[in-house]
Amino acid sequence: MDPEARLGDLGEKAILKHIRSRIPLGPGVALGVGDDAAAVETGALTLVTTDALVEGVHFRRTWTSPRLLGRKALSVNLSDIGAMGGVPRFVTVSLMLPLEVKLEFVDGLYDGLLERAAWAGVSLIGGNLARTEGPIVIDLTVLGHADKLITRAGAQPGDLLVVSGSLGAAAAGVKLLAQGARLTEDGDLRDTGMWTESSGPLLLRCLRAQLDPSPPLAFARALAENDVVHAAMDISDGLSGDTLQLCQESGVGAWLDPINLPIDRAAAALERARGADALDLALHGGEDYELLMAVAPDRLDALKDVAVVWDVPLTVVGQVVAGAPEVKLRSGGVRLPCPMNAHDHFRAARPGTAEGGPTEGSPGA
Amino acid sequence: MDPEARLGDLGEKAILKHIRSRIPLGPGVALGVGDDAAAVETGALTLVTTDALVEGVHFRRTWTSPRLLGRKALSVNLSDIGAMGGVPRFVTVSLMLPLEVKLEFVDGLYDGLLERAAWAGVSLIGGNLARTEGPIVIDLTVLGHADKLITRAGAQPGDLLVVSGSLGAAAAGVKLLAQGARLTEDGDLRDTGMWTESSGPLLLRCLRAQLDPSPPLAFARALAENDVVHAAMDISDGLSGDTLQLCQESGVGAWLDPINLPIDRAAAALERARGADALDLALHGGEDYELLMAVAPDRLDALKDVAVVWDVPLTVVGQVVAGAPEVKLRSGGVRLPCPMNAHDHFRAARPGTAEGGPTEGSPGA
Repeated sequence: MDPEARLGDLGEKAILKHIRSRIPLGPGVALGVGDDAAAVETGALTLVTTDALVEGVHFRRTWTSPRLLGRKALSVNLSDIGAMGGVPRFVTVSLMLPLEVKLEFVDGLYDGLLERAAWAGVSLIGGNLARTEGPIVIDLTVLGHADKLITRAGAQPGDLLVVSGSLGAAAAGVKLLAQGARLTEDGDLRDTGMWTESSGPLLLRCLRAQLDPSPPLAFARALAENDVVHAAMDISDGLSGDTLQLCQESGVGAWLDPINLPIDRAAAALERARGADALDLALHGGEDYELLMAVAPDRLDALKDVAVVWDVPLTVVGQVVAGAPEVKLRSGGVRLPCPMNAHDHFRAARPGTAEGGPTEGSPGA
Repeated sequence: MDPEARLGDLGEKAILKHIRSRIPLGPGVALGVGDDAAAVETGALTLVTTDALVEGVHFRRTWTSPRLLGRKALSVNLSDIGAMGGVPRFVTVSLMLPLEVKLEFVDGLYDGLLERAAWAGVSLIGGNLARTEGPIVIDLTVLGHADKLITRAGAQPGDLLVVSGSLGAAAAGVKLLAQGARLTEDGDLRDTGMWTESSGPLLLRCLRAQLDPSPPLAFARALAENDVVHAAMDISDGLSGDTLQLCQESGVGAWLDPINLPIDRAAAALERARGADALDLALHGGEDYELLMAVAPDRLDALKDVAVVWDVPLTVVGQVVAGAPEVKLRSGGVRLPCPMNAHDHFRAARPGTAEGGPTEGSPGA
């Protein structure tokens, strides 16, 4: 079929037939695309999560590519399954698309979805295609398998708060997009925007963190198997807000040490070049898709042993305390209330009005 | 919370907390709303289906109520699980909502979702809430349990094609909405539009078929348990198009007898009053959410026995034949090609341009 053809000219049946021809029958799929429902082989406990990317809110078509969008749409859902200690198995893809969208957009999106699915060992099992007269919506539901669950509710006073990887790069990436930096369709650097070529590697790192996040799935799975943490969640709305969530679910308080946050080095260097500080991005930026964990102090070494295997950097960023659910900042013996600047989807400014832009969880949006 | 409050003034966390307070922890739910993912108890085989209602395409806010929308959003997904012979168990709710929507809209939607979920024995297990600057999108994913599957692929030459219930009322309902007829929030008749009061019962039946469909779940489940049909699917795009689908999946042809279709009596009476004929609505209208079944002639009595138990009317509407996947009309010994007017989401006219309107599957849209 002509990749330049508009969906409105092709018709639903032809589009569905085309999509279906691209989707392999994966492991565990008893009945895939094409019937009233899919049928998949499941165990005793199935994890279910759903997350959507909405055009103008979570992405702009001019800031990313269909392939990267497909990858990200799946990655953000994989992150949720990972944060439960589960193994992602199956995904349904629900697309709301305007008639003027071209087939090549759908193909690019499925390129990314199928790539990411293969990486994670996930099978596409179907979905839905609906016309919209508004923004594109990419809504995924991922099913996963779990033997043991790592919930948000198990944090205990005295637990150390530990973060995987680094923070702030994805939020810095939104700023770079607003400044004209761009990736190619395949995730290489295409345009440095207002930055010089010498900043290329830093730009690439932050743009990829924003447009093509890669949650630490294997590490998260190993956490559950080894039963080393009391609680975990993925950091999607920003460390400060997500720590508060963990506190609320566990019925505890917490403090974070702003001096010891694993601020992403690329984000820090770029902020420094502008005379700014990346601490806010690391504390409140969001979309890091790293893990926030609560671990008993005597299990920290066991946690580190797991992290070494999966080559995941760990940083102790604070501690759980008894008391009402709140998050304080503590540095050098001084405790302060933590300003809650975590992103709120329903208080966000309109996209494009600030330097931030349309990405939820971004500091400017 | 103030039902008149706009979502943009409440903020995401408050809205989510409010929604969460309304959702009971249902049977089989190990972990419900509030963590990275939900965890549910499953058997060896899990059915998964996803279907969305998009404002301006599948509904208008002025033509229905939030409560009826919530009911329908779930019903259309239940229909898919039923058509596989499955038992619906769990549902995730993904909402794309503009900031200006009021809390009472969300509450009404959940009234309907929870009502329908209770009716079907389904547990709400979570979902997602995203801001949009476009139309409202209500995207549901339903998980079901199945021991045996009834697929679309098992129809064999010689099988009789049988339809449950009646056809055409939902499509007639779209016409009535365009003519000003309305239901109340709770599904009673509020406005007869261009019709007289004496037509009230007919209007009510067709409007309810359109705005509050009720798929024959228990009957479908019994079909699977009793292994009486070779194939089944739900009639959502219209009998003609769905019969073609069944033929394509089974690698067979079929004929339909237009004289013997179970045209809905209310739809027929209303069309007759306009000097028209409801045959087109019954053949191509769509959104009937009845079952189309292929059954061996010597199993027809067994099928009827099941239908009697569940008080489901059955009509033999045609027969499966060997040959290429195509659908013909046959009446009085004459066979004609069946005009394929089944609805195509991606060739639809803009809502409001015809007497039909925004409902997919409607003859006028």
